[in-house]
Amino acid sequence: MLLRMSTLFLRTLREDPADAEVPSHKLMVRGGYVRRAAPGIYSWLPLGKMVLDNVASVVREEMNRIGGQEVLLPALLPREYYEASGRWTEYGDTLFRLTDRKDADYLLGPTHEELFTLLVKGEYSSYKDFPAILYQIQEKFRDEARPRAGVLRGREFHMKDSYSFDLDDEGLQRSYDLHRDAYIRIFDRLGLNYVIVSAMSGAMGGSASEEFLAETPTGEDTFVRSTASDYAANVEAVQTPTPPALPIEGRPEAQVHHTPDTPTIETLVDFLNGVGLGRSFTAADTLKNVLVKTRAPGEADWEIMGVGVPGDREVDMKRLEAVLHPAEVELLDESDFEANPFLVKGYVGPNALLRNKLRYLVDPRVAEGSAWVTGADEPDHHVVDLVCGRDFTPDGVIEAAEIREGDPSPDGRGTLYTARGIEIGHIFQLGRKFADAFGLDALGPDGKPRRITMGSYGIGVSRVVAAIVEQSHDDKGIIWPREVAPADVHVVGTGKGEQIEVAVRIAEELADRGVRVLVDDRKGVSPGVKFTDAELLGIPTSLIVGKGLAQGVLELRDRASGEREEIAVDTAVEKVVRSVKGA
Amino acid sequence: MLLRMSTLFLRTLREDPADAEVPSHKLMVRGGYVRRAAPGIYSWLPLGKMVLDNVASVVREEMNRIGGQEVLLPALLPREYYEASGRWTEYGDTLFRLTDRKDADYLLGPTHEELFTLLVKGEYSSYKDFPAILYQIQEKFRDEARPRAGVLRGREFHMKDSYSFDLDDEGLQRSYDLHRDAYIRIFDRLGLNYVIVSAMSGAMGGSASEEFLAETPTGEDTFVRSTASDYAANVEAVQTPTPPALPIEGRPEAQVHHTPDTPTIETLVDFLNGVGLGRSFTAADTLKNVLVKTRAPGEADWEIMGVGVPGDREVDMKRLEAVLHPAEVELLDESDFEANPFLVKGYVGPNALLRNKLRYLVDPRVAEGSAWVTGADEPDHHVVDLVCGRDFTPDGVIEAAEIREGDPSPDGRGTLYTARGIEIGHIFQLGRKFADAFGLDALGPDGKPRRITMGSYGIGVSRVVAAIVEQSHDDKGIIWPREVAPADVHVVGTGKGEQIEVAVRIAEELADRGVRVLVDDRKGVSPGVKFTDAELLGIPTSLIVGKGLAQGVLELRDRASGEREEIAVDTAVEKVVRSVKGA
Repeated sequence: MLLRMSTLFLRTLREDPADAEVPSHKLMVRGGYVRRAAPGIYSWLPLGKMVLDNVASVVREEMNRIGGQEVLLPALLPREYYEASGRWTEYGDTLFRLTDRKDADYLLGPTHEELFTLLVKGEYSSYKDFPAILYQIQEKFRDEARPRAGVLRGREFHMKDSYSFDLDDEGLQRSYDLHRDAYIRIFDRLGLNYVIVSAMSGAMGGSASEEFLAETPTGEDTFVRSTASDYAANVEAVQTPTPPALPIEGRPEAQVHHTPDTPTIETLVDFLNGVGLGRSFTAADTLKNVLVKTRAPGEADWEIMGVGVPGDREVDMKRLEAVLHPAEVELLDESDFEANPFLVKGYVGPNALLRNKLRYLVDPRVAEGSAWVTGADEPDHHVVDLVCGRDFTPDGVIEAAEIREGDPSPDGRGTLYTARGIEIGHIFQLGRKFADAFGLDALGPDGKPRRITMGSYGIGVSRVVAAIVEQSHDDKGIIWPREVAPADVHVVGTGKGEQIEVAVRIAEELADRGVRVLVDDRKGVSPGVKFTDAELLGIPTSLIVGKGLAQGVLELRDRASGEREEIAVDTAVEKVVRSVKGA
Repeated sequence: MLLRMSTLFLRTLREDPADAEVPSHKLMVRGGYVRRAAPGIYSWLPLGKMVLDNVASVVREEMNRIGGQEVLLPALLPREYYEASGRWTEYGDTLFRLTDRKDADYLLGPTHEELFTLLVKGEYSSYKDFPAILYQIQEKFRDEARPRAGVLRGREFHMKDSYSFDLDDEGLQRSYDLHRDAYIRIFDRLGLNYVIVSAMSGAMGGSASEEFLAETPTGEDTFVRSTASDYAANVEAVQTPTPPALPIEGRPEAQVHHTPDTPTIETLVDFLNGVGLGRSFTAADTLKNVLVKTRAPGEADWEIMGVGVPGDREVDMKRLEAVLHPAEVELLDESDFEANPFLVKGYVGPNALLRNKLRYLVDPRVAEGSAWVTGADEPDHHVVDLVCGRDFTPDGVIEAAEIREGDPSPDGRGTLYTARGIEIGHIFQLGRKFADAFGLDALGPDGKPRRITMGSYGIGVSRVVAAIVEQSHDDKGIIWPREVAPADVHVVGTGKGEQIEVAVRIAEELADRGVRVLVDDRKGVSPGVKFTDAELLGIPTSLIVGKGLAQGVLELRDRASGEREEIAVDTAVEKVVRSVKGA
């Protein structure tokens, strides 16, 4: 492959685009890899298309290696399938919806669980047909509320989505593990630095789920890691360790206290420590009851519920939303309090909720036998020593409290700290949700139908390109790993003599030897501009045919290390071929 | 490459799908190449995806050969660009339109002239930057009124679209010729039997345009060919030869006749021949004036116009629509006649139209000096010897009369006959329409801006797959040309001995030698079923490992010719490699 800068559809830019905040967005636009067509919608220019194809090839090879079979499904999908799965509604505004000329409803596929389920149901019917793994690499569409950062979070983007179909849970686990291994190989080959974190399921509904996050300070996803183990998880997925139950017998009685002027946890704690109860209190001894209302998809009515967390922590709305998904969540407003006068604002205790049949869920730290200071359900009053399991019994546990640096790691080793990453892959045990929705069964050896269990697995192919740039660049430009680079070597001819001619000849020889070459054969462009472009474009190796040519000397530059080496023109082709193939 | 039938996601069908009428639709569904997801929307299964990729590879190679540079543009496009070109309205119901969460209007790209024009405008500015050819292979969306015939006319389909950008008309002609040559190489390599016909432009607006039609009786497009030359054209594009003008002097005066009971051309001709005018008349001597109304895109009002054609021909509404496109056309209804009492139904003559300032266009045969029998604009009256250029002067000429077998060929050699074909490619000199809409200029060497002239060129990649099947099948199944076949050889193991084992071993050896192999390694499937499947799937070569294995004999079958040859098991691999590579 031989690309010539003189004719390549490429114009680099010296200035960062005005709307770009993160390095990958700036550099991919400046390097002429992508151009914005609309908010969150990008065109891939020739070099960008090559990088995208290279990433897709790695994904394809590793998917084929685990027995994945490639298909290609449409982007335009009829509503009925997504109605059957519930996702027509659940997806909310993120789904692009449209009608055809006959007023039939369609959508643009955000992922294809429904259609893959139906496809397999159409072809397969016997236990002998399973397991199966199908995948596609295709455009996806999501109407993101805040498209950002170039192709990192686009509204039309390229994705590999695969789906596994198994007869039983063990089979699903095998398919899941195959994907997990394939993803590790893919991201290793792509030179990415990533972690695998436990994840919540989002709109999918299901059980085991992990995300592959490329670590970078510009990442959208916050996750936590342990100081002492390889534990890593999405903040939404952190399971708070439950303290052991305490004996209830012999605990002091719950007592209501008049606590005037204690509108906040802080003033309450100060008050308690000032009235001489014989012990000292901290915010962690108080139980804060946050009132929210939730509404399931498609429902008209909101349901009020209480969330109890230790008073030294806030409720993390992102965690709460994740755990309640697909239901919507909002805080109560004034009219809700007016409609429910038993909720005494600032003094809500567990019992007003429980007595009035409102759902009341608590943080795992609110364990059996733990004692709390909390609202007494009347103005200016709190109750002390309200014991869980004796004085109130919550309806269950909920993971909604904020995670803080220094919290113990759920695996019991070390403490947590936070980091940021870009979600580049997601593997997910769907279970039988979609098989149930569409009745996907296989006839077992006993002649009885068995419900198929499924997994779904995604890699954001276009996002991976940006993630690589986030992790692999410097202030001069992109530094492509060789596996995804649009070329192996960038031959730069500079000078007014025969340098360009020689550069083209060397480039042709290299191309004949199977090296992918970009040659800067532009006339009337200064060496400085050419070097700046070469650094911006980020081809792993540059070969400079410049001033030294008269002495028979060329210069080999390594983009990543910055190393430069003088080499003889006679041996240049051989040396480049060796370094490229050996790399 | 080695595919195993035992695990391949493929189930063949014995019955034709109920909605299928044409062979390609039947066979591609029965062979498990595609599955319908919605009207005009198809999923490509593993073997189908391979064929699609093979066709795309041929297209890509030949596009690269003429200097085309591959890019990838989004499918989801903002309205503003298509508003600027006028196509937001012109495309009518065929455009899929949608709004995003902010109520901004979008469309799904039917073709990408607008975005390519803007892309080039964004990067290029000097005459030195041109010419350029850019292309993409990508999904297109058109809300066809009558999606039909599987992937032959789909609503989501795969297309190669390329665009050329030149400084002047000679450059455009060169880019056009490059594409024409590339298309010839592509369709030759794909083994298609096709003609290149002159075409109308449709929604594009512009000048020179040719279509590549794959000849097949099931084709949607009717075209005409000459009996004596290689002239071929779309019916919409046939230019009727204009007869020479006749002298006006000395021609008899126009005379109005009372012609009762002559509601049709036939009754009129009979009447005229019966009243003794001293000569005989045929339908071709009469001038039939057909009244239609047209409305330009975005306009509220209809305009009435008359179309004059010789009375022995009908107006071909498809030709009329093509010539008036993008305006709509309808025949007049009763209320139109009521609103315009000067239009005497059945007796409309040129002069009522012209006097009332209605546009009146005529067939080229209505030449200067030709004399006609036509309506006298009063009930039961016709006028004889109404001479064009003396008694009426039309506003212009229009190609709207039907084309008939036996009409003289426009190139003066032979007569026309009709044939049917599938449009597989279209090359088109757009000219400056889009460059004008978006102000695409290049600064010339004289420092003055020069407006760029463009071409647009399409190949329906998914449709080509179906066209190949239309031309290459028999009653047993598909017969793939090797270049697009999903595999080179289909190794079929049949029997209860070690045949399947040996078949797999041979398949592995072939795959190691670089042959693309599909092996039928299914156990418990009868030889008859396996042979039927092999014929249906249509791999060019089959190698049967069956009964003869005990004697060391295999059978080689050629799908196209049906020839069978016994070969020794020891030399089978070598022989297959030779026949595949030599093919």
